[in-house]
Amino acid sequence: MSPATRPTTHRRLHLNAFLMNAGHHDAAWRHPRTQPERVTDLRYFQQLAQTAERGRLDSIFFADGLALWGKVRHNALGGFEPLTLLSALATVTEHIGLIATVSTTFNEPFHTARKFASLDHISGGRAGWNIVTSGTVNEARNFGQDQHLEHRLRYERAREFVEVVTKLWDSWEDDAILLDRERGVYADTDRVREIGHRGAYFGVQGPLNVPRSPQGHPLLVQAGSSEDGREFAAEYAEAVFTAQQTLADAQSFYKDLKSRLAQHGRSEEDLKVLPGICPVIGSTEAEARALDHELTELQVPEYGLAQLSGMLGTDLTGLPLDGPLPELPEERDINGNKSRFTLVAELARRDGLTLRQLIARLGGGRGHRVVVGTPEQIADQLQEWFTQGAADGFNIMPPHLPGGLEDFVDHVVPVLQRRGLFRTEYTGRTLREHYGLPRPANRLTATASGTTGAA
Amino acid sequence: MSPATRPTTHRRLHLNAFLMNAGHHDAAWRHPRTQPERVTDLRYFQQLAQTAERGRLDSIFFADGLALWGKVRHNALGGFEPLTLLSALATVTEHIGLIATVSTTFNEPFHTARKFASLDHISGGRAGWNIVTSGTVNEARNFGQDQHLEHRLRYERAREFVEVVTKLWDSWEDDAILLDRERGVYADTDRVREIGHRGAYFGVQGPLNVPRSPQGHPLLVQAGSSEDGREFAAEYAEAVFTAQQTLADAQSFYKDLKSRLAQHGRSEEDLKVLPGICPVIGSTEAEARALDHELTELQVPEYGLAQLSGMLGTDLTGLPLDGPLPELPEERDINGNKSRFTLVAELARRDGLTLRQLIARLGGGRGHRVVVGTPEQIADQLQEWFTQGAADGFNIMPPHLPGGLEDFVDHVVPVLQRRGLFRTEYTGRTLREHYGLPRPANRLTATASGTTGAA
Repeated sequence: MSPATRPTTHRRLHLNAFLMNAGHHDAAWRHPRTQPERVTDLRYFQQLAQTAERGRLDSIFFADGLALWGKVRHNALGGFEPLTLLSALATVTEHIGLIATVSTTFNEPFHTARKFASLDHISGGRAGWNIVTSGTVNEARNFGQDQHLEHRLRYERAREFVEVVTKLWDSWEDDAILLDRERGVYADTDRVREIGHRGAYFGVQGPLNVPRSPQGHPLLVQAGSSEDGREFAAEYAEAVFTAQQTLADAQSFYKDLKSRLAQHGRSEEDLKVLPGICPVIGSTEAEARALDHELTELQVPEYGLAQLSGMLGTDLTGLPLDGPLPELPEERDINGNKSRFTLVAELARRDGLTLRQLIARLGGGRGHRVVVGTPEQIADQLQEWFTQGAADGFNIMPPHLPGGLEDFVDHVVPVLQRRGLFRTEYTGRTLREHYGLPRPANRLTATASGTTGAA
Repeated sequence: MSPATRPTTHRRLHLNAFLMNAGHHDAAWRHPRTQPERVTDLRYFQQLAQTAERGRLDSIFFADGLALWGKVRHNALGGFEPLTLLSALATVTEHIGLIATVSTTFNEPFHTARKFASLDHISGGRAGWNIVTSGTVNEARNFGQDQHLEHRLRYERAREFVEVVTKLWDSWEDDAILLDRERGVYADTDRVREIGHRGAYFGVQGPLNVPRSPQGHPLLVQAGSSEDGREFAAEYAEAVFTAQQTLADAQSFYKDLKSRLAQHGRSEEDLKVLPGICPVIGSTEAEARALDHELTELQVPEYGLAQLSGMLGTDLTGLPLDGPLPELPEERDINGNKSRFTLVAELARRDGLTLRQLIARLGGGRGHRVVVGTPEQIADQLQEWFTQGAADGFNIMPPHLPGGLEDFVDHVVPVLQRRGLFRTEYTGRTLREHYGLPRPANRLTATASGTTGAA
């Protein structure tokens, strides 16, 4: 991006709405303000997307797993495949970005490149890919594997996967289609190329069977905060979702991640750091605290314990809820989400929490920061992190839906706008433009001298 | 389905609109009535879907391949991934069925089950899956394979694939979700089951992470007409797309396929046979013939020869266009689309066609029957096949789009309606209801006594 179009004079924060069924709080579906009977109703998600767009948010986002999450007995889990869903949401929105999670461990790069290119065309340049390596053995067991691929190898595969996908996105030049009806020439075959990839994990000839999409490359997002995850993010990611409990931890993560960019020839503006935040909003602080208490009271401890067992890689079944955490393994022995393990273990240790207290603390954001207060108080917290070197924006995780998103859009966003921290209108058309990120040049064009056409 | 709801008194035909970029004729994009610049514009396909729905057609359908088809130099190929596209079309239509092609050779059953379940939820019960085994080495080369899996093994894999997918669709009972807010019980885990599949090609634990969809099983469609393809269709398919050039061949295929159903415990009504037809429509016969001639004149022989080489598994480059076909291999030596090979070889032999003449004959329908005439004449042809034991309906392949579909809907459909052969209003809500097919019972429920809950 040229300096002329980059907003150097006035830094503004970026907001992503992380949508999840009845809400992020694990007891949300039991709350009278939610509509869990609608989690397979497209119109429910269309309304959420439109609410987020009304708030001028940068994007909406769906997490994903390839197995049934957690204990279905106690939570409204399971639902739409994210790309299918986002495609249906693209048609009822005009500006907001659409970010889908797709695993590099259980997919093929050709399919993944194609689906995101399709979504990018369908949405007029609003697609983003949250790249995950998947963390559970239950997912592996749905794909013919008894064990989950080792953490380091998952990232090795992810690297090659992203290399192949971006090459496929570049396999058509932007101006490859000629449409010369008179001469009968549809495309310039010198501008459509095989990629001829042969690597450790994939062999992909190409070209892709979709022309280059409006953004060139759909936005690359990443969410792992382990050492492997940070290195991967520094090389490829343009936005990073992360769970951070304290300002100091968030500053440290932010600084660390930004400092890794130069070695990959990237600048600090090329990657946006977006910590997750679960805003529990009330018109008074007392009202917010009452809502937080109400949600905690609705938690099913058995469910919380199962979730916690998963996060900590340790079976906690049967332990007394009012006792402390047992001895835990080291992060190096965790083959799931390493950074979340460490965050939760440190949270319990630092605040001396019992199991019951820890379950309550994790209920709203599964390790992400929960902020309870009035719209002004929540805006204060966002502003502090944004101006103190801890965040470029936030991944907003409403504890209950649709109300928690409506409250954020109608009450917190206007405060941020009044303070000049957030846009009042969309100024761009594409997701990249919302995040102030450039449209990537075609790497295959740059290196193509002497190669031959593909088709 | 109960006899009460099956239309035994009055048999009506079924119509599927097979949509393809600028149209099915390989020179369509050069014709002034087409809009090839819009093949990556969602609104173009939304308008096509709405046109088909205005005609009360049963469904729309997209073919698919996992490599760039043919010579991109001369045709408007490549485009949206079908499921992503159909999801976006679901939101602007209310009744019409949405059929996507997905290959069993280059996909995983868990992903495929989930995406079709998602589309079925998103569309309110309008999803259909056209099951293909993929036929080209260029597709294999995009998935790490140098050679294409052998035809028989592709069907062996397809059988297991479909078994796994249908089990996953049944892994949630219809009434598994309880939503008991008071007791904190979201789902009855006795009604959500692992499938525990371990077979030659796949190991899939399940359950699916999507509740059972409106149709129970999205409609199963199949399009291979080889011996392997027919056996597969007889066991699994509920609608079959097929290419048939003559009434006698179509009758023979129809009878053969229907006769294979009983051995799988199925009745003749459980499977609909839908031959493809490319209608070249004019308000007079002379006008229709002029349009057909105009499209033929726009063909690029080099492109036609490349397509023909692919269909016949024989390199025809450099052969004189006005000469005969060379010696061809036997069907048993073809590892691509066996039935299409045989159809094309027989067409050339029967009518003594030169290469140029064969290319012209295949230009409109790639082997599917082309009917040139007035709306009345085309309706006559459909009626003849429908009443003479050759078809339960048709796969309509307009030679040019959007005009060819508009002409069919506005001029041919009314003739069929006046003759009482086609619906004047939708009477059902789901794709299965349009085709008069029952909603499948949950097979896992029936056999579940003694199994334990999954999650």
